[in-house]
Amino acid sequence: MALPLHPDLPPDLACLKNIDALLQCPICFDFLDISMMTKCSHNFCSLCIRKFLSYKLQCPICNMQMTEQDLRNNRLLDELVVNFKAVRQQLSKANFDSPPISPRT
Amino acid sequence: MALPLHPDLPPDLACLKNIDALLQCPICFDFLDISMMTKCSHNFCSLCIRKFLSYKLQCPICNMQMTEQDLRNNRLLDELVVNFKAVRQQLSKANFDSPPISPRT
Ligand SMILES: [Zn+2]
Ligand SMILES: [Zn+2]
Ligand SMILES: [Zn+2]
Ligand SMILES: [Zn+2]
Repeated sequence: MALPLHPDLPPDLACLKNIDALLQCPICFDFLDISMMTKCSHNFCSLCIRKFLSYKLQCPICNMQMTEQDLRNNRLLDELVVNFKAVRQQLSKANFDSPPISPRT
Repeated sequence: MALPLHPDLPPDLACLKNIDALLQCPICFDFLDISMMTKCSHNFCSLCIRKFLSYKLQCPICNMQMTEQDLRNNRLLDELVVNFKAVRQQLSKANFDSPPISPRT
């Protein structure tokens, strides 16, 4: 959960790391891709959780019994991922733009 | 949806406004407080949606028929709200700290 999976975040934007971690899928550790929420309120990529459920009919986090029919799209997370990626990029860009660059001419 | 409800965000952090808007409850327009998700994937504060459902058994956004039993806690949103508020505060603070301050002595 506390893995440095997206180490390109500038050090002074460390405060964004929690949001970064929260928007990661606990199965593939990448940003949630088509988020699905279980009855027990845990979130996974659609493909990741469906693949898992084909082996075992329980939540990978809390082991609650469940089926694919219990999954519910968590669309707001998908929108948050898109916008958070944009914020990251914009803030990182602002950071890289700050230091003076020596001219190449 | 595009209302300037939290106008204290510095202008150069405008990229955070989308996230700001996404984490607002469509009923009270404040940050989501104990987020509940409907079957149709819409999110509201627990109190806001329960009050609404006591009048009308449908989703306030898309009018899909529903009952209180269909609500599901969306805990990740609660964690995102907490962390997003911290990020906002930290980035705003960094902003206010930047300009030179004339000494009072
Ligand atoms: Zn995944
Ligand atoms: Zn679970
Ligand atoms: Zn509300
Ligand atoms: Zn709805």
